[in-house]
Amino acid sequence: MSFAAKRLFSSSASPITLTLKPSPSKAHHHRPLPANAFPSGFLLGGLHVGVKKQAGLPDLAIILSTSSTPTAAAASFTRNTFRAAPVLVSEEVLQKSGGWARGLVVNSGCANAVTGRKGLEDAWKMVEETDALLSPLSSTGNSNTTGKSKETLVMSTGVIGQLLPIDAILSGIRSQSSASPTRVLGDDFSSWENAAKAFMTTDTFPKLRARTFVLGGREYRMAGMTKGAGMIHPNMVPAKTEFGPLHATLLGCIMTDVAITPRGLQSALTYAVDRSFNSISVDGDMSTNDSICVLANGAAAPPGLVVEEGTQEYEIFKEELTNFAADLAKLVVRDGEGATKFVTVTVKSAPTYEDAHSIASRISTSALVKTALYGEDANWGRILAATGSVPSSDKIDPTKVSVTFVPSDGTSALPVLVNGEPIPVDEARAKEILGLEDFELQVELGVGEAEAKYWTCDFSYEYVRINGDYRS
Amino acid sequence: MSFAAKRLFSSSASPITLTLKPSPSKAHHHRPLPANAFPSGFLLGGLHVGVKKQAGLPDLAIILSTSSTPTAAAASFTRNTFRAAPVLVSEEVLQKSGGWARGLVVNSGCANAVTGRKGLEDAWKMVEETDALLSPLSSTGNSNTTGKSKETLVMSTGVIGQLLPIDAILSGIRSQSSASPTRVLGDDFSSWENAAKAFMTTDTFPKLRARTFVLGGREYRMAGMTKGAGMIHPNMVPAKTEFGPLHATLLGCIMTDVAITPRGLQSALTYAVDRSFNSISVDGDMSTNDSICVLANGAAAPPGLVVEEGTQEYEIFKEELTNFAADLAKLVVRDGEGATKFVTVTVKSAPTYEDAHSIASRISTSALVKTALYGEDANWGRILAATGSVPSSDKIDPTKVSVTFVPSDGTSALPVLVNGEPIPVDEARAKEILGLEDFELQVELGVGEAEAKYWTCDFSYEYVRINGDYRS
Repeated sequence: MSFAAKRLFSSSASPITLTLKPSPSKAHHHRPLPANAFPSGFLLGGLHVGVKKQAGLPDLAIILSTSSTPTAAAASFTRNTFRAAPVLVSEEVLQKSGGWARGLVVNSGCANAVTGRKGLEDAWKMVEETDALLSPLSSTGNSNTTGKSKETLVMSTGVIGQLLPIDAILSGIRSQSSASPTRVLGDDFSSWENAAKAFMTTDTFPKLRARTFVLGGREYRMAGMTKGAGMIHPNMVPAKTEFGPLHATLLGCIMTDVAITPRGLQSALTYAVDRSFNSISVDGDMSTNDSICVLANGAAAPPGLVVEEGTQEYEIFKEELTNFAADLAKLVVRDGEGATKFVTVTVKSAPTYEDAHSIASRISTSALVKTALYGEDANWGRILAATGSVPSSDKIDPTKVSVTFVPSDGTSALPVLVNGEPIPVDEARAKEILGLEDFELQVELGVGEAEAKYWTCDFSYEYVRINGDYRS
Repeated sequence: MSFAAKRLFSSSASPITLTLKPSPSKAHHHRPLPANAFPSGFLLGGLHVGVKKQAGLPDLAIILSTSSTPTAAAASFTRNTFRAAPVLVSEEVLQKSGGWARGLVVNSGCANAVTGRKGLEDAWKMVEETDALLSPLSSTGNSNTTGKSKETLVMSTGVIGQLLPIDAILSGIRSQSSASPTRVLGDDFSSWENAAKAFMTTDTFPKLRARTFVLGGREYRMAGMTKGAGMIHPNMVPAKTEFGPLHATLLGCIMTDVAITPRGLQSALTYAVDRSFNSISVDGDMSTNDSICVLANGAAAPPGLVVEEGTQEYEIFKEELTNFAADLAKLVVRDGEGATKFVTVTVKSAPTYEDAHSIASRISTSALVKTALYGEDANWGRILAATGSVPSSDKIDPTKVSVTFVPSDGTSALPVLVNGEPIPVDEARAKEILGLEDFELQVELGVGEAEAKYWTCDFSYEYVRINGDYRS
């Protein structure tokens, strides 16, 4: 392979040979689901249209709500200044519709980022072509019945700076009209699975999950997919709709058959994203394309029952959405490029949630912490240095900080710093805990009540290998 | 070696072997200097007292001003909340003395960080023992003549969370009294060189430089040493003295024979540090110990001639100090752990210097940019994503951004993005430029006049190897 020919240097006088063993398999994270796991009223699928070179690899996902009830939609997008065309277009669709959308179209293999005016035109064409697949609005359909609002959101992921092969994409979308003999859209597991596959770039497994929950004595479902393995450190902001300010390659979408107001849906999503997708890191780099959306089509709700903010049903829905989003987000970390560890970083007893979150973020992205995790080294000094380097940390009292490694197997935790005093490390025990694939790193600040969790992975040779030779 | 036994994974099904060739030699960056290169009135040296296990490796540096004129002192320290004991002590010495100090004592091998009350006591003892080496103050000596103020600054670098072997250190300091038969302090090149060696931890060469300059028709000299190769992303703030607020393992000290007011010296140092030591990154991690100090003893100044802020001499001195500090700072990047590249990141036409600096910093610390540099991949997409991810970047107009790779050999530059539009990359030319050890990455924002330079290195397998197996 060409990469072997690149210069690889060591500081020793003679060559050093490293043998990279095959990764532990991650395929088991992809789980089959029964057809009744999925929310009602969605048709979807994934197909190969030619964005990806390799035939047979899905690179276009189409998701449509078929419910006769209105579909509320909300999204969070990357905060990166160089927002890709699909991000700008999706935001505008939501702004103009007031928080309603019935379709989502996603391509992988090309990010449609830094593509200028042509890129924007292409993104709009994807929206319009997918709108054409939606059933015409009836009098009980989406509140905007003029037929002029766009109803589809669009996402793209892949290489930056290249135009989409738009003709192939539009042709692929058209091939999914209800009259078409090549229509593959469905509502079974394989339809959901193919859609999830169409999101993938450097992912090694499709990330698809479903969850059932109860509101007001009635069962509802949510299912969703996400993708991401590198260029992951999202910091997404809610879509700029009339419901709030805008401040956001990770992609994800969640579909549910709950009926909820657009405002309620956006609030719940923003809360959920902060505690899930905005709490993960693979490499600390924020993409130009990060986007998460949720579609709630009310297909399982009794007529007239719409969840609104401020109610108990809203609080339950918000918690379910948050836990579900966290499940999806953790899958991205599991698949982190080159990752051999899945580490939960918990910052406790902080002054505010934002303080805890920013400190957890810094620990989770520190190159020195992450290489130590790779080396299975209980190096609390680096954890402390990372903790102390964020602006929030001026509220920290060094004499109240404790650091503990917590194993995932239920055995006893290992404190290494207690109230600012180092504890001589039981190296054998440290080796046992850090030798596990999963463990938790707890940092207690002792100056408040707030807590935040972050999920991260280690920094390995494989990360360098993957990213030293991939134009993305 | 034990590290070979650690798990090394690849995402492919079969093992991959990487052979790390020996690094390009960095020893040539260490240069001999003639005795008349150094500023007058300083005695110094480096000795082995036992902090480092290996005999013969200097681990204690002592620097004394012997000038009969007052020695102004200024410093910048890490912003990390968990400031090590020597940082707290040095800051207090400067606060109480009003910006005067005649001594500096530095040990390597142990950072004296997270060492509680004992650590502070030990740092004070190092100060007092070194003070005892200074000639008694005469009536023309430092302005505080009560004899009660401390006159020495202290620095430490090495492992965090371990106490100093303080008896061995104090014994080593006492061995350098003027009456002692084992005194090694001198003013020749080998004295300066040994002092520089005593700063080293993971450095592969001692970092020592000298410079001559002219103020008011008279020749002055500055010489200095620095250390650092990993845990480098300083963000130091000026010492909290009466001259300004305090807001920074990199260690450095600069000695000069200029006479300047303490206020002028602190201002000049703060300006210089922002454009030198605070503009480098190896791995984006801010240490608990980062410290830079400057001692100006007036030994080469005619009687009564003291440089003050607001004068032309001050401006010249400030520029000389800045350029000199940048020379020292770049040596740290040259020695970056695992580095094979030395890259200058220049952000131009920014709204403010702070905007340019924060964007340059983000580009310089991005894991994806740095692995691309290692892979010699002209991946401007990652550069753009990093550029767009900092808060300052909301002032950026994507249609005005340009990215150019500039070779260090004087041949033509390679634009890859011009006013927001991608240029098809001449891959052969990109390979030539990025194949050099040194090159520049220019990002023009097109929305202002400000510019900042940052120096960084690539992210290699060797960085992971070094930091997956070093308790520091």
